[in-house]
Amino acid sequence: MQYFINLAIQEAEKAESRGSVPIGAVVVQNNKVISSAGNEVIKNSDPTAHAEILAIRKACLLLNSHIIDECDIYVTLEPCAMCAHAIYLSRIRRLYFGAYDVKRGAVDQWSSTLDRSIYKTEVIGGVCETQCAEILQKFFEKKRI
Amino acid sequence: MQYFINLAIQEAEKAESRGSVPIGAVVVQNNKVISSAGNEVIKNSDPTAHAEILAIRKACLLLNSHIIDECDIYVTLEPCAMCAHAIYLSRIRRLYFGAYDVKRGAVDQWSSTLDRSIYKTEVIGGVCETQCAEILQKFFEKKRI
Repeated sequence: MQYFINLAIQEAEKAESRGSVPIGAVVVQNNKVISSAGNEVIKNSDPTAHAEILAIRKACLLLNSHIIDECDIYVTLEPCAMCAHAIYLSRIRRLYFGAYDVKRGAVDQWSSTLDRSIYKTEVIGGVCETQCAEILQKFFEKKRI
Repeated sequence: MQYFINLAIQEAEKAESRGSVPIGAVVVQNNKVISSAGNEVIKNSDPTAHAEILAIRKACLLLNSHIIDECDIYVTLEPCAMCAHAIYLSRIRRLYFGAYDVKRGAVDQWSSTLDRSIYKTEVIGGVCETQCAEILQKFFEKKRI
Protein backbone atom coordinates (compact mmCIF):
# COMPACT_ATOMS: atom_id res chain seq x y z
CA MET A 1 0.00 0.00 0.00
CA GLN A 2 2.78 2.43 0.99
CA TYR A 3 4.86 1.43 -2.01
CA PHE A 4 2.11 2.39 -4.47
CA ILE A 5 1.17 5.62 -2.71
CA ASN A 6 4.87 6.52 -2.84
CA LEU A 7 4.79 6.06 -6.60
CA ALA A 8 1.75 8.37 -6.69
CA ILE A 9 3.76 10.89 -4.64
CA GLN A 10 6.56 10.69 -7.22
CA GLU A 11 3.99 11.46 -9.94
CA ALA A 12 2.81 14.44 -7.87
CA GLU A 13 6.39 15.72 -7.65
CA LYS A 14 6.81 15.36 -11.42
CA ALA A 15 3.56 17.32 -11.92
CA GLU A 16 4.99 20.10 -9.74
CA SER A 17 8.15 20.22 -11.85
CA ARG A 18 5.86 20.90 -14.84
CA GLY A 19 4.23 23.80 -13.00
CA SER A 20 1.04 21.89 -12.16
CA VAL A 21 -0.63 21.33 -8.80
CA PRO A 22 1.22 18.29 -7.34
CA ILE A 23 -1.27 15.45 -7.41
CA GLY A 24 -0.42 11.94 -8.59
CA ALA A 25 -2.24 8.66 -9.24
CA VAL A 26 -1.28 5.04 -9.89
CA VAL A 27 -3.49 2.19 -11.15
CA VAL A 28 -2.51 -1.28 -9.92
CA GLN A 29 -3.63 -4.78 -10.90
CA ASN A 30 -2.34 -7.89 -9.11
CA ASN A 31 0.38 -5.85 -7.39
CA LYS A 32 1.64 -4.61 -10.75
CA VAL A 33 1.57 -0.98 -11.84
CA ILE A 34 -0.64 -0.66 -14.93
CA SER A 35 -0.44 3.11 -15.31
CA SER A 36 0.56 6.26 -13.50
CA ALA A 37 0.01 9.95 -14.09
CA GLY A 38 0.33 13.39 -12.59
CA ASN A 39 -1.94 16.39 -12.92
CA GLU A 40 -1.62 17.98 -16.41
CA VAL A 41 -4.41 20.58 -16.36
CA ILE A 42 -2.18 23.58 -17.10
CA LYS A 43 0.30 21.84 -19.40
CA ASN A 44 -2.43 20.27 -21.57
CA SER A 45 -4.98 23.13 -21.35
CA ASP A 46 -7.41 20.44 -20.24
CA PRO A 47 -9.64 20.89 -17.16
CA THR A 48 -10.30 17.14 -17.12
CA ALA A 49 -6.60 16.21 -16.99
CA HIS A 50 -6.58 15.34 -13.30
CA ALA A 51 -4.11 12.61 -12.32
CA GLU A 52 -6.90 10.05 -11.72
CA ILE A 53 -8.59 10.62 -15.10
CA LEU A 54 -5.27 10.31 -16.96
CA ALA A 55 -4.23 7.18 -15.05
CA ILE A 56 -7.66 5.55 -15.60
CA ARG A 57 -7.64 6.38 -19.33
CA LYS A 58 -4.14 4.92 -19.73
CA ALA A 59 -5.03 1.76 -17.79
CA CYS A 60 -8.24 1.20 -19.79
CA LEU A 61 -6.41 1.69 -23.07
CA LEU A 62 -3.74 -0.80 -22.02
CA LEU A 63 -6.27 -3.36 -20.76
CA ASN A 64 -8.53 -2.66 -23.76
CA SER A 65 -11.67 -2.24 -21.65
CA HIS A 66 -13.67 0.60 -20.14
CA ILE A 67 -14.25 -1.62 -17.10
CA ILE A 68 -11.20 -2.36 -14.96
CA ASP A 69 -12.80 -3.99 -11.94
CA GLU A 70 -9.69 -5.95 -10.97
CA CYS A 71 -7.70 -2.75 -10.53
CA ASP A 72 -7.09 -0.48 -7.56
CA ILE A 73 -6.19 3.21 -7.72
CA TYR A 74 -3.80 5.10 -5.42
CA VAL A 75 -4.13 8.90 -5.35
CA THR A 76 -2.27 11.48 -3.25
CA LEU A 77 -5.42 13.58 -2.69
CA GLU A 78 -9.07 12.73 -2.10
CA PRO A 79 -10.73 12.80 -5.55
CA CYS A 80 -13.11 15.54 -6.68
CA ALA A 81 -16.62 14.70 -7.95
CA MET A 82 -15.42 14.32 -11.55
CA CYS A 83 -12.71 11.82 -10.60
CA ALA A 84 -14.84 10.01 -8.01
CA HIS A 85 -17.49 9.37 -10.65
CA ALA A 86 -14.87 8.32 -13.22
CA ILE A 87 -13.57 5.81 -10.67
CA TYR A 88 -17.10 4.48 -10.30
CA LEU A 89 -17.65 4.33 -14.08
CA SER A 90 -14.45 2.32 -14.53
CA ARG A 91 -15.61 -0.02 -11.71
CA ILE A 92 -12.23 0.22 -10.00
CA ARG A 93 -12.20 -2.19 -7.05
CA ARG A 94 -10.50 -0.10 -4.40
CA LEU A 95 -9.54 3.54 -3.98
CA TYR A 96 -6.65 4.47 -1.69
CA PHE A 97 -6.07 8.16 -1.16
CA GLY A 98 -3.61 10.19 0.91
CA ALA A 99 -4.69 13.65 2.03
CA TYR A 100 -8.32 14.57 2.68
CA ASP A 101 -9.67 17.50 0.65
CA VAL A 102 -12.10 19.33 2.90
CA LYS A 103 -13.06 21.83 0.20
CA ARG A 104 -13.48 19.84 -2.99
CA GLY A 105 -13.12 16.19 -2.00
CA ALA A 106 -16.12 14.19 -3.17
CA VAL A 107 -15.48 10.96 -1.36
CA ASP A 108 -15.31 11.57 2.37
CA GLN A 109 -16.38 15.10 3.02
CA TRP A 110 -18.58 16.39 0.28
CA SER A 111 -21.37 14.43 -1.35
CA SER A 112 -20.07 10.99 -0.34
CA THR A 113 -20.27 10.08 -4.01
CA LEU A 114 -18.63 6.70 -3.62
CA ASP A 115 -20.70 5.72 -0.60
CA ARG A 116 -23.96 5.39 -2.49
CA SER A 117 -25.29 1.94 -3.11
CA ILE A 118 -24.50 2.07 -6.84
CA TYR A 119 -20.83 2.65 -6.08
CA LYS A 120 -19.10 -0.60 -5.32
CA THR A 121 -15.59 0.84 -4.98
CA GLU A 122 -14.08 0.30 -1.53
CA VAL A 123 -12.45 3.43 -0.10
CA ILE A 124 -9.40 3.70 2.16
CA GLY A 125 -8.52 7.31 2.97
CA GLY A 126 -5.56 8.85 4.84
CA VAL A 127 -2.80 6.60 3.45
CA CYS A 128 0.51 8.41 4.14
CA GLU A 129 -1.73 11.39 4.81
CA THR A 130 0.92 13.72 6.30
CA GLN A 131 3.38 13.19 3.45
CA CYS A 132 0.67 13.66 0.78
CA ALA A 133 -0.72 16.78 2.47
CA GLU A 134 2.76 18.33 2.89
CA ILE A 135 3.50 18.29 -0.85
CA LEU A 136 0.39 20.36 -1.51
CA GLN A 137 0.93 22.67 1.49
CA LYS A 138 4.50 23.44 0.38
CA PHE A 139 3.34 24.03 -3.21
CA PHE A 140 0.70 26.56 -2.18
CA GLU A 141 3.05 28.24 0.35
CA LYS A 142 5.60 28.80 -2.46
CA LYS A 143 2.79 30.21 -4.65
CA ARG A 144 1.93 32.77 -1.98
CA ILE A 145 5.53 34.09 -1.65
CA MET B 1 -30.88 27.16 -28.74
CA GLN B 2 -32.78 24.60 -30.84
CA TYR B 3 -30.18 24.78 -33.60
CA PHE B 4 -27.34 23.81 -31.27
CA ILE B 5 -29.29 21.08 -29.48
CA ASN B 6 -30.09 19.68 -32.92
CA LEU B 7 -26.37 19.51 -33.65
CA ALA B 8 -25.93 17.64 -30.35
CA ILE B 9 -28.70 15.25 -31.47
CA GLN B 10 -26.79 14.65 -34.71
CA GLU B 11 -23.71 13.78 -32.63
CA ALA B 12 -25.84 11.37 -30.59
CA GLU B 13 -27.01 9.69 -33.80
CA LYS B 14 -23.41 9.35 -34.99
CA ALA B 15 -22.49 7.78 -31.63
CA GLU B 16 -25.29 5.24 -32.12
CA SER B 17 -23.96 4.34 -35.56
CA ARG B 18 -20.66 3.48 -33.83
CA GLY B 19 -22.49 1.19 -31.39
CA SER B 20 -22.32 3.62 -28.47
CA VAL B 21 -25.14 4.96 -26.30
CA PRO B 22 -26.53 7.92 -28.31
CA ILE B 23 -25.52 11.02 -26.38
CA GLY B 24 -24.07 14.13 -28.02
CA ALA B 25 -22.62 17.46 -26.94
CA VAL B 26 -21.71 20.76 -28.60
CA VAL B 27 -19.62 23.64 -27.19
CA VAL B 28 -20.56 27.09 -28.48
CA GLN B 29 -18.89 30.50 -28.18
CA ASN B 30 -20.47 33.67 -29.59
CA ASN B 31 -23.02 31.61 -31.53
CA LYS B 32 -20.19 29.66 -33.20
CA VAL B 33 -19.65 25.93 -32.72
CA ILE B 34 -16.23 25.40 -31.17
CA SER B 35 -16.40 21.63 -30.79
CA SER B 36 -18.81 18.72 -30.89
CA ALA B 37 -18.61 15.10 -29.85
CA GLY B 38 -20.60 11.94 -29.28
CA ASN B 39 -20.18 9.26 -26.66
CA GLU B 40 -17.09 7.09 -27.37
CA VAL B 41 -16.88 4.92 -24.24
CA ILE B 42 -17.07 1.57 -26.03
CA LYS B 43 -15.15 2.54 -29.17
CA ASN B 44 -12.25 4.10 -27.23
CA SER B 45 -12.28 1.69 -24.24
CA ASP B 46 -12.46 4.82 -22.13
CA PRO B 47 -15.01 5.19 -19.30
CA THR B 48 -14.39 8.95 -19.28
CA ALA B 49 -15.20 9.38 -23.00
CA HIS B 50 -18.66 10.85 -22.43
CA ALA B 51 -19.78 13.35 -25.08
CA GLU B 52 -19.41 16.32 -22.70
CA ILE B 53 -15.85 15.42 -21.64
CA LEU B 54 -14.73 14.97 -25.25
CA ALA B 55 -16.38 18.21 -26.41
CA ILE B 56 -14.88 20.17 -23.49
CA ARG B 57 -11.41 18.72 -24.08
CA LYS B 58 -11.56 19.61 -27.79
CA ALA B 59 -12.82 23.14 -27.08
CA CYS B 60 -10.10 23.78 -24.47
CA LEU B 61 -7.41 22.52 -26.79
CA LEU B 62 -8.67 24.76 -29.58
CA LEU B 63 -8.99 27.81 -27.32
CA ASN B 64 -5.68 26.93 -25.60
CA SER B 65 -7.09 27.29 -22.09
CA HIS B 66 -8.49 25.05 -19.38
CA ILE B 67 -10.99 27.80 -18.61
CA ILE B 68 -13.65 28.48 -21.24
CA ASP B 69 -15.99 30.79 -19.38
CA GLU B 70 -17.33 32.45 -22.53
CA CYS B 71 -18.63 29.12 -23.83
CA ASP B 72 -21.94 27.32 -23.45
CA ILE B 73 -22.49 23.57 -23.73
CA TYR B 74 -25.50 21.79 -25.28
CA VAL B 75 -26.01 18.14 -24.30
CA THR B 76 -28.79 15.73 -25.27
CA LEU B 77 -28.93 14.19 -21.76
CA GLU B 78 -28.58 15.62 -18.26
CA PRO B 79 -24.89 15.20 -17.33
CA CYS B 80 -23.65 12.65 -14.79
CA ALA B 81 -21.55 13.72 -11.78
CA MET B 82 -18.28 13.34 -13.73
CA CYS B 83 -19.46 15.57 -16.57
CA ALA B 84 -21.25 18.05 -14.30
CA HIS B 85 -18.02 18.59 -12.36
CA ALA B 86 -15.98 18.83 -15.59
CA ILE B 87 -18.38 21.55 -16.76
CA TYR B 88 -17.77 23.36 -13.49
CA LEU B 89 -13.99 22.96 -13.74
CA SER B 90 -13.98 24.41 -17.26
CA ARG B 91 -16.13 27.33 -15.96
CA ILE B 92 -18.56 26.93 -18.84
CA ARG B 93 -21.08 29.77 -18.68
CA ARG B 94 -24.31 27.97 -19.47
CA LEU B 95 -25.42 24.33 -19.70
CA TYR B 96 -28.39 23.43 -21.89
CA PHE B 97 -29.51 19.83 -21.73
CA GLY B 98 -32.34 17.86 -23.37
CA ALA B 99 -33.66 14.82 -21.53
CA TYR B 100 -33.61 14.53 -17.75
CA ASP B 101 -31.75 11.50 -16.35
CA VAL B 102 -33.63 10.40 -13.25
CA LYS B 103 -31.14 7.65 -12.42
CA ARG B 104 -27.70 9.13 -12.98
CA GLY B 105 -28.26 12.80 -13.74
CA ALA B 106 -26.19 14.96 -11.41
CA VAL B 107 -27.65 18.33 -12.19
CA ASP B 108 -31.36 18.32 -11.51
CA GLN B 109 -32.23 15.09 -9.81
CA TRP B 110 -29.31 13.67 -8.00
CA SER B 111 -26.81 15.66 -5.98
CA SER B 112 -27.61 19.04 -7.56
CA THR B 113 -23.92 19.33 -8.27
CA LEU B 114 -24.20 22.49 -10.31
CA ASP B 115 -26.54 24.20 -7.86
CA ARG B 116 -23.91 24.62 -5.17
CA SER B 117 -22.56 28.08 -4.57
CA ILE B 118 -19.17 27.23 -6.09
CA TYR B 119 -20.81 26.34 -9.38
CA LYS B 120 -21.48 29.41 -11.40
CA THR B 121 -22.76 27.60 -14.50
CA GLU B 122 -26.35 28.52 -15.38
CA VAL B 123 -28.50 25.47 -16.15
CA ILE B 124 -31.41 25.19 -18.62
CA GLY B 125 -32.87 21.67 -18.69
CA GLY B 126 -35.53 20.11 -20.92
CA VAL B 127 -34.49 21.70 -24.25
CA CYS B 128 -36.12 19.60 -27.04
CA GLU B 129 -36.70 17.11 -24.23
CA THR B 130 -39.04 14.72 -26.11
CA GLN B 131 -36.75 14.43 -29.13
CA CYS B 132 -33.64 13.89 -26.95
CA ALA B 133 -35.39 11.32 -24.77
CA GLU B 134 -36.76 9.41 -27.77
CA ILE B 135 -33.31 8.71 -29.23
CA LEU B 136 -32.28 7.00 -26.01
CA GLN B 137 -35.59 5.17 -25.55
CA LYS B 138 -35.42 3.76 -29.09
CA PHE B 139 -31.78 2.74 -28.59
CA PHE B 140 -32.56 0.80 -25.41
CA GLU B 141 -35.74 -0.72 -26.91
CA LYS B 142 -33.65 -2.09 -29.81
CA LYS B 143 -31.13 -3.46 -27.29
CA ARG B 144 -33.87 -5.38 -25.51
CA ILE B 145 -35.16 -7.07 -28.71
